[in-house]
Amino acid sequence: MTSIPSAGDPVGASLRAAVFASGGGSNLQCLLDVERSAPDETPWRIVLVVSDRESAGALGRAAEAGVTTRVIPVSRRDPTEVADETVDVLTDAAVDVVFLAGYLRLVPAPVVARWRRRILNVHPALLPSFGGKGMWGRHVHEAVLASGARVTGPTVHFVDEEYDEGTILAQWPVPVKAGDTPDLLAKRVLEAEHRLYPAAAAHLCRALLAGRTPSPLDAPGPHFGASALPLDPAMP
Amino acid sequence: MTSIPSAGDPVGASLRAAVFASGGGSNLQCLLDVERSAPDETPWRIVLVVSDRESAGALGRAAEAGVTTRVIPVSRRDPTEVADETVDVLTDAAVDVVFLAGYLRLVPAPVVARWRRRILNVHPALLPSFGGKGMWGRHVHEAVLASGARVTGPTVHFVDEEYDEGTILAQWPVPVKAGDTPDLLAKRVLEAEHRLYPAAAAHLCRALLAGRTPSPLDAPGPHFGASALPLDPAMP
Repeated sequence: MTSIPSAGDPVGASLRAAVFASGGGSNLQCLLDVERSAPDETPWRIVLVVSDRESAGALGRAAEAGVTTRVIPVSRRDPTEVADETVDVLTDAAVDVVFLAGYLRLVPAPVVARWRRRILNVHPALLPSFGGKGMWGRHVHEAVLASGARVTGPTVHFVDEEYDEGTILAQWPVPVKAGDTPDLLAKRVLEAEHRLYPAAAAHLCRALLAGRTPSPLDAPGPHFGASALPLDPAMP
Repeated sequence: MTSIPSAGDPVGASLRAAVFASGGGSNLQCLLDVERSAPDETPWRIVLVVSDRESAGALGRAAEAGVTTRVIPVSRRDPTEVADETVDVLTDAAVDVVFLAGYLRLVPAPVVARWRRRILNVHPALLPSFGGKGMWGRHVHEAVLASGARVTGPTVHFVDEEYDEGTILAQWPVPVKAGDTPDLLAKRVLEAEHRLYPAAAAHLCRALLAGRTPSPLDAPGPHFGASALPLDPAMP
């Protein structure tokens, strides 16, 4: 992590990022798209994509974008070996920050320790609700619908040694609507994820580049507080 | 519960409501204010306020509004006796629906059984997060701030035999802001509660008057979905 410029560095400085993904990688694509469309304003460069699965669609997206890929299998392996390999791979690529994008494994503790508060994950519900082991993808939205919750939305949080338990950096409320199915809800939340995750990632990188601890992001908007509540008690 | 008019009843029909409160009763006041300010549009009449504490401020508010009050102590009493007394008190007052407003006791199971899906509670966080025993008042907002959550807000839910576990009827997202204290956050959430609770109560009563099962309320607003998300990845 010697590549982090000091606070005096010129505008346009960026950190070297790895993305970890187990699946299709739509959040990887979103981060790549943001970087490609506005490189001067994007304070990261994705230099590596890591997956635990050779078949992960994310690897194809990475290859297409010209980003180095690496498969680090996890199943039926000695955890220490996985941890050592992961630390080595990230160190060799001089990675400053890690963005999880649908990565379904725990990040090995030595990686968390070495990149502490430099690893982000996005989760498709408002943690601490609907998080933890087994709570991923469709399972999350099914649980939200089963609970009757009327508000959900993505959470971006720092990664620690447990699933979905690190400090929250950003959240975005998304309504659950009458007639929602898990698929409809997943689509609505994913739209918000694809805006929130790059914003939170940029916020973290800018703070690190400036030598600051990143403050949590406020959920946005004057449209959002009590002032927007309708006065009519018959609402909505 | 014989006072429930049929679906053919005239506009302006209302149900007889009891409010249960252990504390100051700001949500009681809010329900009273809505009823007093627009009686023809309000589908409930608060006919009884019940508290487990003689010192509850809610009793004073009720008396001032000319509403009958009743103290039903819970501490150091046989739970069956408390349950029987509560059923009798509600039955004598011909109560159709019950609104909890800062009531810190479990509603006795026989009451829940007899008024099932006719008892509402408002909780100052987005359940299932930050609910359960001990999670009330300031404790809730302290836990929200400690978690780093960026979105909170009130939940109105049906009351069942456990704390904060009944089906959710309505939720409203409220932002957690940088520099928030438990008091600041409590104030912001309470503003939303005072709008959401009467709306949800009215929604339930109208459904019951019409002989329908109430649908959950959508969290409001075109201002609220993904369309309102800023396009700038540097947001917010």
